[in-house]
Order: sequence, then structure tokens, then C-alpha cells
Amino acid sequence: MTTGHVFIATSLDGYVARKDHALDWLTKQPNIEGEDGGFSAFMAKVDGLIMGSGSFRTLLGFDQWIYTKPVIVLSNSLTDEDIPAHLKYKVRLSRSQPEALMQELKQEGWKRAYVDGGRIVQSFLRQGLITELTITSIPILIGEGISLFGAVEADIDLELLNSRQLATNMLQATYRVV
Amino acid sequence: MTTGHVFIATSLDGYVARKDHALDWLTKQPNIEGEDGGFSAFMAKVDGLIMGSGSFRTLLGFDQWIYTKPVIVLSNSLTDEDIPAHLKYKVRLSRSQPEALMQELKQEGWKRAYVDGGRIVQSFLRQGLITELTITSIPILIGEGISLFGAVEADIDLELLNSRQLATNMLQATYRVV
Repeated sequence: MTTGHVFIATSLDGYVARKDHALDWLTKQPNIEGEDGGFSAFMAKVDGLIMGSGSFRTLLGFDQWIYTKPVIVLSNSLTDEDIPAHLKYKVRLSRSQPEALMQELKQEGWKRAYVDGGRIVQSFLRQGLITELTITSIPILIGEGISLFGAVEADIDLELLNSRQLATNMLQATYRVV
Repeated sequence: MTTGHVFIATSLDGYVARKDHALDWLTKQPNIEGEDGGFSAFMAKVDGLIMGSGSFRTLLGFDQWIYTKPVIVLSNSLTDEDIPAHLKYKVRLSRSQPEALMQELKQEGWKRAYVDGGRIVQSFLRQGLITELTITSIPILIGEGISLFGAVEADIDLELLNSRQLATNMLQATYRVV
């Protein structure tokens, strides 16, 4: 089956976005030329992305579509008409359940999928579909928002693979789900 | 005024204890002889501790009282009769508000107070009484519990001072409140 990989930034109090999906607290952080926190290297190793409709709408709000690899949007409400014309060959909607999707992607030759967005990551984690998480912790407390993590049926043990301080005052750690 | 310092372990999903205050997920972690994660060095630099009644009750459940420095328990419900005889000279109850308490402690010569326990840390943070936090992140997701962080009136910016991986597969980071 295709394995799920997470590469995400959270506030120190564990949020990936404010309640209204805003990322102002993240984008206000210092940007250092040439320091992408390992994002390009991570992207080079995945076959495509899986995200929810919330993340997709946030991305549509940016000036440019930032991904070159195929994106699958998991949504029961969106239809093909919600996909802008210039993204028809880059974005695909799916109503599959997470595990079924990972089986389908395996058939299509995907080895590794970048799983993105708070709610989607939570549901893939609960179903044992995430292999590795790289979490970049932003030194700010925002108090409320969309959590990276949620309820779990049983404790999930992880192994800390590595960590590093980025030049941008952020702490990045990579964990493997045991 | 006395400054507040936090030294605490959280699950990767940000909990300091399960809902019932249980720490089994923490105590099951590997213990490595001689690796105390910098706790002794931290303790040596504080004049005493401030905690809530929840943390206090958890400590009373341990075989031995683990602190040599004075402990102040902030509680509106506990009375002196709730303090076991052998702790009369080690533990003191207070009903002061956080800022007033820090002023009182300053008068008593305290420079640095170790502020402990989820709810107490949250209220001291909201009132700007925390200067530094050392957070040891345990590689486990427990899904629910008592959060280290809670609501804030406005974003709180932090500076990452340092970080290190402990031999025990934990990631420890120290932040200064900006």
C-alpha cells in the first residue's frame, strides 16, 4: 500500500491553522533566502499529495498553484466544477475512504503520498496510514485553531528520527510511527 | 517581581497528563541511568515551586516527596488540614492571584519560581508571568488529556533558545517568552 508522509508546520500549541484556516501567524515568520526547511527535498520523494477541501480552498486563495505533483482532494461535497480550469490536470477529486484510496494509489504506482491538512492527517493517523511525520514547530502560541492531532483509539507510539533548529528560529523534528 | 519558569514534559500532541491526571504514558518511557534531562540543573536555579491542587494530589500519590525546595500550592479549596504532617514545613497553601503571589515571593527573596501543572502554567502565561519554558516532548500521541497550553488573549511570540535530543528518544526545547 502507498505510505502516508506528513510535512507540516504547527504553532507551539499544536495548531496548523486558525479556526478560519488563516495562516497569518505562520506567514509572518522570518523568511530566510534558501532556507526552505527541507521542503523541496521532501517533495522530491513523494509521488503526489492528498488533502481535504479546507486545505484545497486555502491553496486556491494563493496567487499561484504551488504544486507540480498531482493532488488528490478528498471531499464528499466538491464536484469537478469546483476545480478551476487551469488545474484540471493537476487536481483530482476523490470520495474514497483513506485505506481504499491508498490501495488505489498503489495500483497507480504511488509509493509515497504527502498527506496534508489537520483533519485529513488525523483520520489517516487513526487508520494507521501514516509512516512518518516531519513537524516544524513555530515559536508562537495562538491559543485556538485547527489542531494537527486529535482523538486516537489507543496511544500511538513514535520514534524520534532526527531534529534540527532552522535558521528561522523554528524546531523541526521527524518521527516514525512505531 | 519573581519570574516564572516552566520545565515540563508533554506528549507530542501537547498533553501534560491524561484527563484523570495519570502519567503512565510518561513513566513507561525508557529510563536511562544518569539522564535526568537537565532537571537537576533546572531545579538548582529556582527558589521554589508553584503548582495547583491537581499536581499536588498527584505528587502525594508518589512513595516519597520528591522536592527539597519550598512548594506553594495555589488552591481555593484545600486547607492546612489537607497537608500531611511530614510536609508542614515544605508545602504552603496560597489563595493569592498569580501576580500578587509573584510580588509576595519577590519580598521573600525568590528570584525564580518553577511554575508547574497544566492549568497553573496556562494562567501564569496569560498574565505574562512566565519568562522561560523548557518542554520535553515525549514521542507518543495520547489523544486527549490536560493540555499544557490553552486560550490566550493575543498571540504569544517565543524565541527558541536551544534544543537537544535526549538519549531517551525525547526532544527537549527551551523557549523564552518574547
